Amino acid sequence: MTHVFRYELLKTDGAARLGRVHTAHGTIDTPAFMPVGTAATVKAMRPEEVRATGAQIILGNTYHLMLRPTAERVAALGGLRNFMNWRGPILTDSGGFQVMSLAKLRKLTEDGVTFQSHVDGSRHHLTPERSIEIQHLLDATITMAFDECTPFPATHEQAAESMRLSMRWAERSRKAFVARPGYGQFGIVQGSVFEDLRRESVEALNALDYEGYAVGGLAVGEGQEAMFSTLEFTTPLMPQHKPRYLMGVGKPADLVGAVMRGIDMFDCVLPTRSGRTAQAFTRRGTVNLRNARHSDDPRPLDAECSCAACRQYSRAYLHHLIRCEEILGMMLLTQHNLQYYQDLMRGIRGAIQEGRLAEFAARFDEDQARGDIAPLA
Amino acid sequence: MTHVFRYELLKTDGAARLGRVHTAHGTIDTPAFMPVGTAATVKAMRPEEVRATGAQIILGNTYHLMLRPTAERVAALGGLRNFMNWRGPILTDSGGFQVMSLAKLRKLTEDGVTFQSHVDGSRHHLTPERSIEIQHLLDATITMAFDECTPFPATHEQAAESMRLSMRWAERSRKAFVARPGYGQFGIVQGSVFEDLRRESVEALNALDYEGYAVGGLAVGEGQEAMFSTLEFTTPLMPQHKPRYLMGVGKPADLVGAVMRGIDMFDCVLPTRSGRTAQAFTRRGTVNLRNARHSDDPRPLDAECSCAACRQYSRAYLHHLIRCEEILGMMLLTQHNLQYYQDLMRGIRGAIQEGRLAEFAARFDEDQARGDIAPLA
Repeated sequence: MTHVFRYELLKTDGAARLGRVHTAHGTIDTPAFMPVGTAATVKAMRPEEVRATGAQIILGNTYHLMLRPTAERVAALGGLRNFMNWRGPILTDSGGFQVMSLAKLRKLTEDGVTFQSHVDGSRHHLTPERSIEIQHLLDATITMAFDECTPFPATHEQAAESMRLSMRWAERSRKAFVARPGYGQFGIVQGSVFEDLRRESVEALNALDYEGYAVGGLAVGEGQEAMFSTLEFTTPLMPQHKPRYLMGVGKPADLVGAVMRGIDMFDCVLPTRSGRTAQAFTRRGTVNLRNARHSDDPRPLDAECSCAACRQYSRAYLHHLIRCEEILGMMLLTQHNLQYYQDLMRGIRGAIQEGRLAEFAARFDEDQARGDIAPLA
Repeated sequence: MTHVFRYELLKTDGAARLGRVHTAHGTIDTPAFMPVGTAATVKAMRPEEVRATGAQIILGNTYHLMLRPTAERVAALGGLRNFMNWRGPILTDSGGFQVMSLAKLRKLTEDGVTFQSHVDGSRHHLTPERSIEIQHLLDATITMAFDECTPFPATHEQAAESMRLSMRWAERSRKAFVARPGYGQFGIVQGSVFEDLRRESVEALNALDYEGYAVGGLAVGEGQEAMFSTLEFTTPLMPQHKPRYLMGVGKPADLVGAVMRGIDMFDCVLPTRSGRTAQAFTRRGTVNLRNARHSDDPRPLDAECSCAACRQYSRAYLHHLIRCEEILGMMLLTQHNLQYYQDLMRGIRGAIQEGRLAEFAARFDEDQARGDIAPLA
C-alpha cells in the first residue's frame, strides 16, 4: 500500500519493461493482465479465486455499473471494492466504448453521448464530467479518461476528427478528476493506425500529466500486424515513467507481442468469455472441450497448469460438464483460462528480469504451434 | 473408513435417532442431508465447497448418468467419485423415479421400463438387474433397489399392485447386487399412504436383509400431514439397527418433522435448485432475493450464517447479481442454502445428543414464523 500513485520501472529488455504500479489498494507487478469484472463480478468466479490465479487488479465497466446497480448505489454500499469484495485495486473504463457497442439510439455531440440502456430502454447522458464522477462514486483506483474509441477502418480525416474530440474530452476528464493519494487517472491515446495522429494525441495528453497512459482504438478489427506496427511507433512517444495500458487486448500471442513493444497492462474478456463457451487456452494452443475427442480422455487439460481444473479433473469430465451445460464447467474453464493468462504474465515478467524475453517469445510461439496433444488411440 | 458397512445407533430422543453410517468411503453422521449431484456435479458448486458446508455424502442420479456420460464411461474413468472428484461416499438412486418423471414414451412391464431419453430421443431399457449394474459401474457406495415410485393419489388397489411389483423388483435388485466390503444396498418401502401396504412392504424387504431401508413414494404431492402420518406408522415397523432414508425430502420443516418420526437420511434438490432461482433458506424463513426491497440493503442475508454469501456480501450485492443473471449469484445462493441445510442437520444432531429435540423443533418453528427482517427505513 502506498499514498502515492506511481510507476516504478525495474528493468528493460528491448522495449519490454518490468515494473510495478503502486496504488492506494495494492501493488501491481507489470506487465500485468487485468481480468474483466463487467457487472461487479468476474463472471463465474469468486473474487478470492480470481486473486489466487495471481491477478492483482481487475477491471470494472462504467457502462454496465451505471445502469445496474447504479453508481450512487455502489457508493452508498462502500464503493465497488467493498460491494464485490475485491481486496485490491480496480480500474474502471470510462463507459464510452460500451455505449457505442451496446447501447441503443446513441447520439454523439461535443458535450457527450446520449443513449438508451440496452437493459430497459431508459435514457442516459454520458459526458466526460459524468463519467469521471461515476468512476469516483465507484471509488476506482484507476479512472480512465472519457474518449471516443475510433472505429476501424477510418480515413485519416475521420480518425483525426475523432481523436481531437477525444483530446478535448481528455482535458475535461482531467479537470473533473479528483486527485486522491494512491489513486490515478489514465489518458487514452487515439489516432487509429496513423503515426502523425498518434503523435499528436500523445503530445496532447502529455500536457495533462496523467498518472498513466492507455493506447485505445486498437483490437477493433485492424489485425495483429497493424496493431503491432501502431504500437511500434506509439509507445516510444509515451512517457518512460508512467504505466502503459493497451485496452481490450487480447489473445496470448497479442500479449507477448505487445509487451515486446513496450506495453505494461492489458485487459480482455477473452479468458472469461471463452471459459463459458468451452474454449481453453493452453501451453499448446487453444482446445475446444466440446469436441467429442475428449469424451473418454482421462488426461488433464494442460499437464503443466496448476489450476483446479487441471489438477483435479480429466478432459472427459470437463467435456461431460460442457455437454450437460453445467455451471461447474464454466467455473472450471474460466478459472483455468485466468490461471493460464496469469501464468503467461508471470513467465513474461521472469523473462524480462533475466533479459531473455526474445527467447521466451520464441519458445512460446513454438509451443503454441505444436497444437494440442494427440488423441488417445 | 471401514470395511464393514454398518449403522451405529448412538442415542435416541423420542423416535429420533442419532447415529453413524460407516462405509468404505467415510462415515456419515445422521440425521444427514445429502446434496443432489444429478449429472456428476452438485450444480454451481465445487466438490470441496460442498464438503466445506458439512456434507459427508452426496447423491448421484442413475437416469442422468446412464444417458450422459454413460455408466461404462464413468467406470473406465475410475468410478463416479474419481470422475467428479468427490472424496466421500456417494448414494445413487435407481433411475426409476426419473424415468417416470423425465423420459418420453415410457412403457412399464414386469421386466422393467423401456423409454426414450429426454436428451436425444435414444431408446433405453432399464430393469432391476441393469439399474444395479449401472450403480456398480458408477461405484456407488450405497446402491438403491430399482422400484416404481407409486404416484399420488392412488387407490388402495393401484398402490398394492405397484408396491408388489416393486417388491418383486426388490428381490431381483438384491440378487443383482454384488456385495463388497463397506458398500451397501438399500431397499425401498412403498405402499402410498396405506398402513397395511407399508407393513406388507417392510416385511417383504426385511426378508432380503438390506444394509438400509428407504421410504419411497412420499413427497409426491400428498402434503406434509399425510407424509408425517405415513412415517408415524411406517418407521416403527422398520429395523432398528439399519439406516432409514426418506427419499426426495424436503423443506427444512419436513426434515425436522421426519427426524422426529425416526428418519436418518434425506436428499432433495430444493437447496440447490432454489439457489439458482433467487430463493434463500434462512433461520427466519425463506427470502426471495430478486425482490427490489433488497436493492439497497447492506445487511447479510442471514446474520447467523457462516457461509461466504453471508460473511462477505450484502443483500444488495446478491440482489444485483440475481438481477444481472450472474453465475456468481447462483454459486453464492446455492452455497448458502447447502450451508443452511447442513447447519440445520448439525443443530438437530446436537439436540438429539442433549435430549432436547422437541425444544429445538419448537424454537425452529418460532424462528421460521418470525419471517424475514424488516426492510430498512
